[in-house]
Amino acid sequence: MVLKYEKAVEKWGVFEVSVPGKSEGNPFVDYAIEGEFTGAKEQRKVAGFYDGDGIYKVRFMPVEEGAYTFQIKGSFSEQVFEGEFAAGPPTEENHGPVQVTGRYHFSYCDGSPYYSIGTTCYAWVNQEEEMQEMTLRTLKDSTFNKIRFCIFPKHYDFNFADPVTFPYLGTPVDSSGITKENFRDLIPFVNGGKFEGNDWDFKRFNTDHFRRFEKRIDELCRMGIEADIILFHPYDRWGFSAMGAENDALYLKYVIARFGAYRNVWWSLANEYDLIGNKTIADWENIAAVIAAADPYGHLRSIHNCRDFYDYSKPWITHCSMQRQDLYKEVELTDKYQEQYGKPVVWDEIAYEGNIQYGWGNITGEEMIRRFWEATVRGGYAGHGETLIPTPDYTGAEKLWWSHGGRLFGDSPARLQFLGRILKEIPDGGRLKAIPFDWDVNVAVLDDPEQENMKIKDFYLFYFSFMRPSFRSFHLDEETKFQVDVIDTWNMVVTPMGVFKGKFNIPMGMKQYMAVRLRKIKI
Amino acid sequence: MVLKYEKAVEKWGVFEVSVPGKSEGNPFVDYAIEGEFTGAKEQRKVAGFYDGDGIYKVRFMPVEEGAYTFQIKGSFSEQVFEGEFAAGPPTEENHGPVQVTGRYHFSYCDGSPYYSIGTTCYAWVNQEEEMQEMTLRTLKDSTFNKIRFCIFPKHYDFNFADPVTFPYLGTPVDSSGITKENFRDLIPFVNGGKFEGNDWDFKRFNTDHFRRFEKRIDELCRMGIEADIILFHPYDRWGFSAMGAENDALYLKYVIARFGAYRNVWWSLANEYDLIGNKTIADWENIAAVIAAADPYGHLRSIHNCRDFYDYSKPWITHCSMQRQDLYKEVELTDKYQEQYGKPVVWDEIAYEGNIQYGWGNITGEEMIRRFWEATVRGGYAGHGETLIPTPDYTGAEKLWWSHGGRLFGDSPARLQFLGRILKEIPDGGRLKAIPFDWDVNVAVLDDPEQENMKIKDFYLFYFSFMRPSFRSFHLDEETKFQVDVIDTWNMVVTPMGVFKGKFNIPMGMKQYMAVRLRKIKI
Repeated sequence: MVLKYEKAVEKWGVFEVSVPGKSEGNPFVDYAIEGEFTGAKEQRKVAGFYDGDGIYKVRFMPVEEGAYTFQIKGSFSEQVFEGEFAAGPPTEENHGPVQVTGRYHFSYCDGSPYYSIGTTCYAWVNQEEEMQEMTLRTLKDSTFNKIRFCIFPKHYDFNFADPVTFPYLGTPVDSSGITKENFRDLIPFVNGGKFEGNDWDFKRFNTDHFRRFEKRIDELCRMGIEADIILFHPYDRWGFSAMGAENDALYLKYVIARFGAYRNVWWSLANEYDLIGNKTIADWENIAAVIAAADPYGHLRSIHNCRDFYDYSKPWITHCSMQRQDLYKEVELTDKYQEQYGKPVVWDEIAYEGNIQYGWGNITGEEMIRRFWEATVRGGYAGHGETLIPTPDYTGAEKLWWSHGGRLFGDSPARLQFLGRILKEIPDGGRLKAIPFDWDVNVAVLDDPEQENMKIKDFYLFYFSFMRPSFRSFHLDEETKFQVDVIDTWNMVVTPMGVFKGKFNIPMGMKQYMAVRLRKIKI
Repeated sequence: MVLKYEKAVEKWGVFEVSVPGKSEGNPFVDYAIEGEFTGAKEQRKVAGFYDGDGIYKVRFMPVEEGAYTFQIKGSFSEQVFEGEFAAGPPTEENHGPVQVTGRYHFSYCDGSPYYSIGTTCYAWVNQEEEMQEMTLRTLKDSTFNKIRFCIFPKHYDFNFADPVTFPYLGTPVDSSGITKENFRDLIPFVNGGKFEGNDWDFKRFNTDHFRRFEKRIDELCRMGIEADIILFHPYDRWGFSAMGAENDALYLKYVIARFGAYRNVWWSLANEYDLIGNKTIADWENIAAVIAAADPYGHLRSIHNCRDFYDYSKPWITHCSMQRQDLYKEVELTDKYQEQYGKPVVWDEIAYEGNIQYGWGNITGEEMIRRFWEATVRGGYAGHGETLIPTPDYTGAEKLWWSHGGRLFGDSPARLQFLGRILKEIPDGGRLKAIPFDWDVNVAVLDDPEQENMKIKDFYLFYFSFMRPSFRSFHLDEETKFQVDVIDTWNMVVTPMGVFKGKFNIPMGMKQYMAVRLRKIKI
C-alpha cells in the first residue's frame, strides 16, 4: 500500500504515519512495527507503537530537507506500507535539537547557541487541563527554555491527589486516607518499595496518558522550550518505580517510539535516582543501554541525583544534571565539575525560591539569582523552581510551581529574563568560561580556543555575588580600551560607564549582586 | 630597702613596683631586673623592665587574695628591694583572666562563662588621642568583649600616616610620597622585605609608645574587654616585621614584662603570619617558645592566618584564631576544625561589614550576623569588623573601624548585642555544641557530658541561616514538653510561642536569619 503526503513537514519536525493493524491479544507486546525512512543523505530505522483502537503509528524526525521515502512493516500487519513525503525548511523558531558543543556547552543543530535557563514542574502534565493551560501561559511569558517533568505521577508533599490519567491500565491504591501526616509511609524509599493496593497491567499502556504528554511536548516544542523528560522517580505510591527490568524496558521503548521524534526531547533517566531503593547502578546502566539502543536520534541524556552525583563520566551521559549536595556552596564548584566529568554542567536543582519548611524549598529570589549567576560565570547552567505558598498554615494541597505548574509568584523569573538578555549579548553567540583572576571575584571570558593565547581577552564578565563594593579598580594592561558596563543583576539595569584603559575605578553603588562587563574595543 | 603599700590591689589586678636603677649605657639590654612574689599559696618570678629616666618597673598579677611579700633584684641596681602588699577581693566586674574550658570554650578564672564576641581595630592605639577616646566610647556602648590590635604601626590601604609614636628610637622612612597608588611598593610581602630609609635602634624602646599601649590595655580591662594583642604583622614599611630573631626576642620580653600582668591580655603572635615573607614556621615556633618562657601567667596564645591555617595542633596554641580561607563557606566548618585541632575555634576574621572594593571588606550586616550565628550554633566564636566608607570616591584617608577605630556605622553591632543576650540566656551559663540533625538546619545543644546520653536534651537552638521557612515541624519525641521561642536574629525579637510536645508546627514568618529555641520543661 502506498501512502502520499501532500503537506511538507519541516526539517526537525515530526512526520507521523498512522496505519491500521492487529488488535487481537495484547498489541503492546505481541506485535512489532518499524519504519525505514530514506532521504538523499539520511537512512534511518525507527520503531513505531500501538496507539489503541487498532491503530499503529510511526514517528520520524527528518534531519535534512528534501524528498523522503519510507517503508512501514512488521508483525502488526500482513501489509507493508510504503510512501513518500517532503521535508521543507525549518520555520524561524525551529533550530533543531539541542546538542553538546565544545566540551561544556550546548547548541541547536543549526549552530545557534542554546543558553539553558531551565525550570522544574514535576507533575504539571498530571494536573487538570486548566492548570496545564495556565502553566503554558506562564511559560510563554517567561524566559525558560527547558522544563523538567515526570511521566509517572508524583506522590509527595503538596501532591497527594491521583493524576488525571495513569500510564497503565489497572487499579491504583486507594488514596482516600492519605494526608500530609502519613504520605511518607507510602513512599518506597521509606517503606522499602511495597506498593500494596495497586493492581496494574504493566504490559498495557494507557494511551490517553501518553497522548496527553505528547500534546504538551509538542506545545513546548513550538514555544522553543526543551522537554527534559524524567523517566523514573522515587515519589511513588503506585509501583512505577519498581516494575522490574523487563517492564522498564517495555516502557522506555514505548516512550521513545512515541516521543523520540520531537526535537525538544531530553531524557532524564531519573530524578533523585539514589532514592529509588530497588534500582542499582547496574540497573541504571541497563536502562541507559535500552535508551541508547532505542533512540535513533541520540537525544541528550542524563540522570539526576539527590545526594551522591551519578558518575557523569559514563559515556552514555551527555551532560551533568546535578542537584546541589551542600547547603552552602555548590554552584561555585561548577568549573571543578566541568573538569572532573568533561561535560556541560547543568544545575537542575539549586533549591527553590520559596517559603516551605524544607531547606531545598525556601531560598529567596536573591539567592536563586545569585546561584544562577555563580553557575553562569563559570560557564555552567542552572535551573529555576518555585515553592512559594501564600500562608504559613499550609493545607498540603497548595499548588506550587515546582510540582503543579500554574502561576509564578517569585522574584526570580524576571531576573532570569534579564540574565537571558545578558547571555544573548555575549559577542558572536559565544559561551562563557571561568578564568583565574582575583580571589574575591568570579571572572568569565569567552570559551573559545582563539581567546586562550590572548593576554587581554575580547570580553570579561566580573561577578561580585553577595559582596557589596562601592567601587572596583581594574587594571588589565596599559593600552587596551574597554567599553565598560555595570550590571545590576537584581534590579535589572545595565549602566554604560564609558570607555576606559589602563588602571581605572568603576563605581558600583554599594549593592549586592553586581557585575561588570568589559568589551574590548577593536581597532 | 623595704617598700610598703597601704592600698590593697585586687586579686587579678596589677601590682606595680617602681624603683630607680642604673641609666648608664643601654638599660634596655645592659641590665636585668626580676621580682619574686610570695603569697600564701603562690610563688612567682616575673621579669621587670626599664621605663626610661632611670626608672625600672616590675608588674605582678596576684591570683589569690591575702598578704604577699616580694623581692626585687638584678643587675639594674646594687640594692635589693623588698616589700609587702595585700591582694583584696576582685571587684564585681573582675572575673580574672580568660582561659580554655572543656575542649572548645572559654571561662574566666572565677568560673563564669566567657562568650567571645570580638572585634578588630588593628591600628587604633596608633591614632591621635581623640580618635582613641572615640574608640573607647564606641566600645563602651557595644557588646564586644575582645578587641584585636597591633603594637607595631600599620602600613596598609586607608592607613598610610605615620603613627603617633614609634616603638623604637630612630628615624622612619620618609612617608611624604606615599599614596594609595604606590603604598604596596613599600609592603615587604611585595618588595621582599627591604626597608630602605629607616634607621632604628632595635635595642632602644620608645617607652612613650608602650606606655600609651598599656594605658589602653588597662582601660579595656576595666571595661571587661580582652586585649588580643597582635605582636607581629606584615603591613610594614618600617622593618618591624624583619628585625631578626634576637631583636624579636628582646621585643617580646619587653612587651610581656610591661603588659603581662594585665589579666585581659591575649597573645596573637601575628596577623596573617603567612604574609610575613622573612619568617619561617621555625621562626614562629621560636617566637612561641620565647613567649611561653617569658609569660609567667600563661595568657591565651594563638596566631592568625591569611591563607593557610597555622598548625593549631601545636601544643603552645591555646585556641584557633582563624581567618576564613574560602569566599563562600568557612564558619560552617567550625565543628570540623574543632575536631581537627581539639581546641576552641575563634573566627577572628570572617570578612568585614563594609563597602570597600576588596572581598574581605564588603559584606553586608546580614551576612556578618549570619556568619556569627553559623559559628555560634556550632560551638565556635566569631569576630566582627567594619570597613564602611561614606562615599565611593575614597581618598585613601578615611577612618575605618577595622583599622583606626572611631565610630561604627554598620548594622551588625546592634545584632551582636542581641546575640550576646541570647548567649547569656543559655541555661546555667552553658556552652553550645553542634549535633547532627536534619540536613537543612543547624542545631546546637549544651556542650556538657551530662547531655551526651540524654535522648532528649535540655536545650536546642535551631538556626535557619539564609533560608526562609514559613514554618517548621518539630518532632523530638511524644511526651517531652518544650518552651518554644522563635528568635529573629536580624530584627532582634524573641517571640515566646508557648509550650509544645509531640509533633508540632512553629510559624516562622518567611524570614531569613531565624532561629528556634526549645527549652525542656523539667518536671
